[in-house]
Amino acid sequence: MLQDTQNTPLLAGLEAGGTNFNCVLARDPRTILARARFPTEKPERTLAKVLAFFREESARLDPLGAMGIASFGPVDNNRASPDYGRILNTPKRDWVHIDLLGWFREHLGVPVNLETDVNGAALAEQRLGAAQGIDNFIYVTVGTGIGAGIVMGGRIINGFTHPEVGHMRMSRDANRDPFPGCCPFHGDCLEGLACGPALELRWRRPGTELPPAHQAWELQADYLAQMCANLTYCYAPERIILGGGVMQNAFLFPLIRERVQQLLNGYGPPPALAHPDSYIVPPALGGESGQLGALLLAQQQLHGNPPAA
Amino acid sequence: MLQDTQNTPLLAGLEAGGTNFNCVLARDPRTILARARFPTEKPERTLAKVLAFFREESARLDPLGAMGIASFGPVDNNRASPDYGRILNTPKRDWVHIDLLGWFREHLGVPVNLETDVNGAALAEQRLGAAQGIDNFIYVTVGTGIGAGIVMGGRIINGFTHPEVGHMRMSRDANRDPFPGCCPFHGDCLEGLACGPALELRWRRPGTELPPAHQAWELQADYLAQMCANLTYCYAPERIILGGGVMQNAFLFPLIRERVQQLLNGYGPPPALAHPDSYIVPPALGGESGQLGALLLAQQQLHGNPPAA
Repeated sequence: MLQDTQNTPLLAGLEAGGTNFNCVLARDPRTILARARFPTEKPERTLAKVLAFFREESARLDPLGAMGIASFGPVDNNRASPDYGRILNTPKRDWVHIDLLGWFREHLGVPVNLETDVNGAALAEQRLGAAQGIDNFIYVTVGTGIGAGIVMGGRIINGFTHPEVGHMRMSRDANRDPFPGCCPFHGDCLEGLACGPALELRWRRPGTELPPAHQAWELQADYLAQMCANLTYCYAPERIILGGGVMQNAFLFPLIRERVQQLLNGYGPPPALAHPDSYIVPPALGGESGQLGALLLAQQQLHGNPPAA
Repeated sequence: MLQDTQNTPLLAGLEAGGTNFNCVLARDPRTILARARFPTEKPERTLAKVLAFFREESARLDPLGAMGIASFGPVDNNRASPDYGRILNTPKRDWVHIDLLGWFREHLGVPVNLETDVNGAALAEQRLGAAQGIDNFIYVTVGTGIGAGIVMGGRIINGFTHPEVGHMRMSRDANRDPFPGCCPFHGDCLEGLACGPALELRWRRPGTELPPAHQAWELQADYLAQMCANLTYCYAPERIILGGGVMQNAFLFPLIRERVQQLLNGYGPPPALAHPDSYIVPPALGGESGQLGALLLAQQQLHGNPPAA
């Protein structure tokens, strides 16, 4: 299965996450040649470490052909915008307006392709993972935040900016769940109620310390099922992939699938109703999807084939 | 401004609505040559009247070149499906599984292009109305039902089937609004709480008899604002066009715009935050958008250029 990749250019992939920056080098995303991880600190510090890694490894291996970045958001991913590649209004104040794309283009001297982390992960799941052969699907991450990459008709869907499905409104029963939510903008939106930090704030211990039988998970499954129902009606996807730290609790999947069927109540697109087990699934690439997506973005940049609609 | 259209083929446009079937004939959508309206009764009866109209007018004018249908839903609008053009699981039991497209193709002997009514209306607003020059927008109808046509990157977005945003979940305060909703599948989803019939059931008189100062409208604006906020976060459109019977109450627009800003609370795409008055707008084509969309669909069929992604 191995291709002769000695003559294909070296690609740099960067998953710029809220907690870590993951760096990978490859000629083909299936064969990683080098990798490194740096914590997300002050921009100058983190960016300098990433740059040093890519420079050193490229000196050892080969000159770089292109770079792909799958970045935390909000980030300007509109290729027609003068601010394309800049971080936008994030709660990480040090990072606001940082020109991620421009900085690497200047310092590495190669073309750079940037997308959101979830759009990058969606791309990787489409090419190499749980959405191969599927034209309409959604990749959701449920972790420090909640976000989604949406692929319709085979292409990543962006509007004026990228979607931010984590901020959709939820139906919350205040008697059952008095926690008011932790979104700094909306309180009890989806992210405010169901991201990792919300779990910890509501139950006063990290999600990793909550046993599977804890009432926390039924509530968590309900909010994520509301999200899946809304995504089902808004996009009519063939599959919803749920990734991110919170979804490593695999027992959540059957709880969510069951609740989604209750919410849809027999009304919805055939893939959602007929095959619940293959409709809501975990990622096939696990925590690798963001990095692999970044490499695919680099590859597309090289071939003049950007992924967005 | 008039083109020489004598040599361009005659187009049949049908807006197949839940209440009426509106028929138009034109060479160019800007110049309607004949029109008729028939109530939505038993399929055999309504379809026979529509067919007779198109046959008689075409005998008088010219042979037909193509037909476009903008149909109520749910309808199979997936061109790759064996059921493309059939009505799906609608509460109008007589119409379930009726092959709208096949019937007209057979009886009129011309190519037929079918989309949902809201996708048709979106197309018309894009070409001739309130979304000219805008690549990312949403057309919503709020009437007997609630549905949306979504255009991203200039193209109509469909997943496995067409979206059904009317069934998204709402945040409902049962103390403020004890009405449990009238959706036969979900009770208090968006459509169940905010369609025309819900207004009438909740307040025990038709919406047309509720004065602008009635508390009904603040509640109505709240649900429609929740919808606009969710659409904003799910799609990041540049504009949301609100049409349909309920939106003929023009005083709803400022109420909705104000509530949307409260819900977004300063977080969202620039078009939504910076220009509320041009972000949420009425249709420019009024009640004509469905019919004009049907003519545009016919035109696209003739030119081998179907609109969907």
